[in-house]
Amino acid sequence: MPSTFKNIKLVVSYDGTDFFGFQLQPRHRTVQEVLEVAIKRILRETVRVHPAGRTDTGVHANAQVVHFLTRTRIPVNKLPQALNSALPEDVRVLNAQHMPKTFHARFSARFKQYEYAVYNSEIVPPLLRRTVYRFPFALDVRQMRKGAKILEGRHDFRSFQGKANGQENTVRRIRHLRVSKSGKFVCFTVEGDGFLTNMVRNLVGTLLLVGRKKLSLNDLSQILKSRDRRLAGPTVPALGLTLVKVIY
Amino acid sequence: MPSTFKNIKLVVSYDGTDFFGFQLQPRHRTVQEVLEVAIKRILRETVRVHPAGRTDTGVHANAQVVHFLTRTRIPVNKLPQALNSALPEDVRVLNAQHMPKTFHARFSARFKQYEYAVYNSEIVPPLLRRTVYRFPFALDVRQMRKGAKILEGRHDFRSFQGKANGQENTVRRIRHLRVSKSGKFVCFTVEGDGFLTNMVRNLVGTLLLVGRKKLSLNDLSQILKSRDRRLAGPTVPALGLTLVKVIY
Repeated sequence: MPSTFKNIKLVVSYDGTDFFGFQLQPRHRTVQEVLEVAIKRILRETVRVHPAGRTDTGVHANAQVVHFLTRTRIPVNKLPQALNSALPEDVRVLNAQHMPKTFHARFSARFKQYEYAVYNSEIVPPLLRRTVYRFPFALDVRQMRKGAKILEGRHDFRSFQGKANGQENTVRRIRHLRVSKSGKFVCFTVEGDGFLTNMVRNLVGTLLLVGRKKLSLNDLSQILKSRDRRLAGPTVPALGLTLVKVIY
Repeated sequence: MPSTFKNIKLVVSYDGTDFFGFQLQPRHRTVQEVLEVAIKRILRETVRVHPAGRTDTGVHANAQVVHFLTRTRIPVNKLPQALNSALPEDVRVLNAQHMPKTFHARFSARFKQYEYAVYNSEIVPPLLRRTVYRFPFALDVRQMRKGAKILEGRHDFRSFQGKANGQENTVRRIRHLRVSKSGKFVCFTVEGDGFLTNMVRNLVGTLLLVGRKKLSLNDLSQILKSRDRRLAGPTVPALGLTLVKVIY
């Protein structure tokens, strides 16, 4: 590639409610599409943006990271404002910077952090309705914390992989998985070196069964060992999930 | 009134974004209208609901309180779920209870607490776009706290009354007015025995000028004393304002 190309990293925040996920899809509104359209309009170049993680339909991002190659001469510090002027209000570029050519949003990422927000009540306040999962059943948070400890570390997470056409290598490392409670919020924060399809939502769905005492800690260990998706809990809805940050 | 009437208090939460405020208005969608329609559908009675405070267009509520008189035989503990089944998703009834006949949502209220959320940055994350006021200028929070102290207590707040056709008696008591900062959030929490039209938004607009050093603390004292709306700061937008709670 000619040396006139620059490698730009963007930090991007979005409300996933009205997107069919990050990745381009014909006839569907996606984050990638609106980013590439805005970049084309502002930089007058057709680029391909590469995300740290392809979030699914309805999943939010506080600080997704993408990179793309460009010949633009627009100063990088002007890019956020310029791109935001061309973006819909449910996507914002928070930051832009030059990176070495070797930087790749996905392959250079060491860890990604996701948060899953449960609202443990019959009724969800309307201002939270797009970002929390309503869960009306009693939860034992201490028990879920013990369950989270079982899941931390390097494991084959095949039992928590969503789709049949998933990854061949299903071993991942969860650096930490924390369960916090604040008022009616129960929040799952998970940081790992990579995640299988629906993995966070399946881990949370299974931990909620532990919290309801429908599964014991021993059951959870067995599910992890089984490498059998049918034994794990349900996939919780996308709206509670947010990609919080990417660590390089 | 016949003794078969019951006085019901509801605690109501709403996302004010798509409402023309609380109070009924012809040809506009209001919180009062959707509540009265839902009550009519569930209780089969035409009632009038009375709020603790008539929030303006775009203002949110965590825990607005309303009361109404009814002959219904539906147990009060079943009312939230029943009413929520008939309400749009941007309004939820959090709680319902029987009250003595003397209870009035507005006249029995001793204090109301409002919160105004400022996001002190060029760029607002999309998930916050309906609930915070974007404010890109540097703010001196300590100076605003000193300003808030000047406004606390019992004063004639005529300088901060929005409309010409306002209240005759413009004396109110602010029990406390706190300015807190957490990351890029600057939050104003104000509790008082009553508020004039746009008073909270005018107080915040004026304190933001203090925070920008466009007004000194002495200027602020003079504005308060002047009883002249033209001297105070601008009315900040409704979207950052939330009625947090009503104290009886």
